[in-house]
This record gives sequence, structure tokens and C-alpha cells, in this order.
Amino acid sequence: MMSRPKILVTNDDGIIAPGIRALVEVAKRLGDVLVVAPDSPQSGQGHAITITEPLRLKKVNAFEGVEAYECSGTPVDCVKLAKNVLVKSENIDLCVSGINHGSNASINIIYSGTMSAAMEACLEGIKSIGFSLLDYSFEADFSAAKYYAEKIITSILNHKGDSDLLLNVNIPKLPLNEIKGMRVCEQGQGVWEEKFQESEDPRGEKYYWLTGHFRDGTFGEKSDLFALKNGYVSIVPSQYNLTDYKVMENIKYFEKA
Amino acid sequence: MMSRPKILVTNDDGIIAPGIRALVEVAKRLGDVLVVAPDSPQSGQGHAITITEPLRLKKVNAFEGVEAYECSGTPVDCVKLAKNVLVKSENIDLCVSGINHGSNASINIIYSGTMSAAMEACLEGIKSIGFSLLDYSFEADFSAAKYYAEKIITSILNHKGDSDLLLNVNIPKLPLNEIKGMRVCEQGQGVWEEKFQESEDPRGEKYYWLTGHFRDGTFGEKSDLFALKNGYVSIVPSQYNLTDYKVMENIKYFEKA
Repeated sequence: MMSRPKILVTNDDGIIAPGIRALVEVAKRLGDVLVVAPDSPQSGQGHAITITEPLRLKKVNAFEGVEAYECSGTPVDCVKLAKNVLVKSENIDLCVSGINHGSNASINIIYSGTMSAAMEACLEGIKSIGFSLLDYSFEADFSAAKYYAEKIITSILNHKGDSDLLLNVNIPKLPLNEIKGMRVCEQGQGVWEEKFQESEDPRGEKYYWLTGHFRDGTFGEKSDLFALKNGYVSIVPSQYNLTDYKVMENIKYFEKA
Repeated sequence: MMSRPKILVTNDDGIIAPGIRALVEVAKRLGDVLVVAPDSPQSGQGHAITITEPLRLKKVNAFEGVEAYECSGTPVDCVKLAKNVLVKSENIDLCVSGINHGSNASINIIYSGTMSAAMEACLEGIKSIGFSLLDYSFEADFSAAKYYAEKIITSILNHKGDSDLLLNVNIPKLPLNEIKGMRVCEQGQGVWEEKFQESEDPRGEKYYWLTGHFRDGTFGEKSDLFALKNGYVSIVPSQYNLTDYKVMENIKYFEKA
């Protein structure tokens, strides 16, 4: 392992969430930690960036012995500020994001600020891992998640190559001794079944509020959803190249149109 | 072609942007159009959704003979409201998003509200196409973009299969007679070279404002960046499965850890 790697820690639940505290505890045992995290919850922000207004960055004393900043923007803004204002990206050895309160398995990766922050670091050539625990509660028990985060971070820091590595790690809501191990998976197929709660504000104007629940789709034994259902930590290697290569041939007719 | 397909139109530049006006003009020649678009510019919103506050949806008379709504949320919110509140998704034959003022080629797809809206429709099993013109100007000339949008939409409506089709179409900033045709491409490798403008507000508090320019990376002849540079319309079939299958084998060691 390199001597004291530089680890950037961020999340989307905000700098006071217990999940990032758990991740900082793990990261500071393994390297020199810099925290840049949103000053408010940013779940569901996806890969949003702030371009039409200014960003604030404030040094905070949130974690003992750790340089930490809260940022007024999105999780992706946090990574951009970290690498452009606070430290050059070539000096960051690893970015870890989370530990998210709630699953980012399956298509949740698309909406997730946690995973988008990790992807942003990956775009900059920084190895990156997003961690999520399948428990939305603020009082969630992060002990098993911490155990696996430490195992995975240690392993990635020791492993050469793949500077564009991006891992989506999800941990089942189980006590450590009931987790069966880790599985390398593909992104499972699931859907959000959504409804909008329709109501009226005090002025009699209609509004809509998003509600919904995640439903597993048809997914195979290689999927993260299957691994999690069976008591394993799921690790999905992910990428920002969205090209669907298998469709390219099917639509070649456009070139003759 | 089916008789009068139902076409959902959205964008990220907002309902008053000339680009969506151009797209509505094309779409209404080809089907029954429903517009649901943001009431303010939402560039760079990626796949953000609004969960901590209510959404407003207001019927507007913005396009002659077309049912249209402006929404207080993000582009993805617009698609969710369209399919959950206004019309069932199984009744939408196609979603078109744009025409964006500015490129969504290469990694811009990740940040783009235009493309995220299209991807959201695709997640719901609706064929979907995002259109972008390589001209940021509000006064951009959309005539060539409209010509190609009509060609592509007609072709997709006539084409069976691939209900999860998602196309990222970019049109070079050229007069129609200088565009050489269309190319089916892969997502090119580019990077944003960013800087934060650092300044002080009237109270003497520091702030940061994102600036930057896109720089082509190393990209091959199959990429959208190459096609656009050479005067072609680029069409990248895209997907929401982010699994990096080629990395899976490399990290199988986790399963033994």
C-alpha cells in the first residue's frame, strides 16, 4: 500500500448524517482524509450541478482530526470543489461516498447523489466507491457496513491499475454475522412504482408530492438485487460510458437515410 | 405507422426556450403532442428529482393547438408527472426531449437534464430521443435540427421493437446543406476543464462560481465527437444499465475475501 493515501469523503445525506460519520471513521484509519459534503440533505439529486448560482464552502470542525468542509451545493459540486479549490485531483488517491442511508442498488444508481459524486470523481480519474446500507433510518446500525467498507477500501488501495474504477457497493440490513460475504454483480432490473400525492395548499392551489416504493423487476442470479436478497454485500463495477453497443447495429439504417 | 401516436415533449431549458418550440413544431406534424416542461431553466440538473418539496403543474397556452403544462420541478419530474398524473405511460408512444441549446455529446449526457428526462421515459418502457444543437445561443438557428429531428422521429415511430430505445442525438452548428448525414456512434471521451471563479459577496463572505470549457479527450472515429467535428449528426444509442461488465472478472477476488 502507498504511504498514507489521500481519501476524499463525501455523501448526499449531508455532513451531519450518521452514515458519513461511519465512513470517515473507517477512512481515517486507512489514509489522510478530506471531507467535503453537502450542508443539507441532497438525496435524489443525481448528477445535478450548480451553475446559475454561487457555491459556499465552509470549514467545519465536524470530525475529530479531519479536515472537513460543508458545501451549499449538490454532491457533484462537492467533488468539483474538492478537486478544483481544495486539492488537485491527481493528489487524491481514492474517493468514497456514503455511507448512504438507503439502497442504491439497481436503477437507484441513476437518481443517487451518493453514486453521482463517486462517478464525478471517476470522471476525473480518481478511483471511487459509493457505499449504501439498505436501511433508511437515521438510527441505522452501520457496524456491518463499516466492516465491509474497511475491507473493500483496503483492498482497492492495495490494488494497482483501473484508475477509472467505480464501484457501487450495497450492504444488506443484517447483523455482521448473518452477512454471507461479497458478490460481484451486474445492475439489477427494478422499477419505482410511483404515485403523486395530490393536495391543495392553504391558498387552494393544487400541488403534487412524489411518493412511491421500489419494486424488484425480473432479475437474474448475477444481479445486485439477487445478492442482497440472499444476504450478500453487492459490488457492481459501474461506468459513465452509457453507449448501448448492442443496439448500434440495429439502427445503422440511419446512416443511409 | 400507428395512427396518430402520442408524443410527450419535454426539455431542460424551460418551456419558453426556442428549442422546445422547434421540437413541438416537428412533433405535432407526426402525432398528438403533450408538452410538460420546466417553468425555468434546468440545465445541469442531471437525473435530479424533487422529493423534499411539492411540485406545481400549470396548464399553459404556449403552443397553438397543443396541450401543454409547465412544471416547477426538474426535467425528470416533468416526465414523472406526465406519466403518473396526466397520462398513463403505456399510452405514450414516444418521448422527445430538447431541442437542447448546446451539446449533449460525450460525457455531457451525464449532467444533462434533457438526456435525463429522455432516460426517465426509457426507464418506463417509452422509446425516447434527446435532441441537442451545438449552439448555446437563444437565437440559434434550429432549421437543420428540425429537419433531422423529423427524419429520426418518423423513422423511430415506423420501427417496431426496442421499447427501451434511448437515443442521444446531437446536431452540428451548420446550415442544413453542409451537414453530411447521420452517424451511429459511441459516446466520446471528453473532459470538462473547470475552474471556480472565487469572489466575495457584499458582506465579505467568499463564494465560488463554476466556470469551465469542454475539451475533447482522445476519441476514435466511432465517437460522437468525431462525427460532429466532421459535419455529421451523431446518434448514440444509450442505456441506463451502468454495469461495467469488462471489470467484473478483474474484481472477482472480492468474493473470496
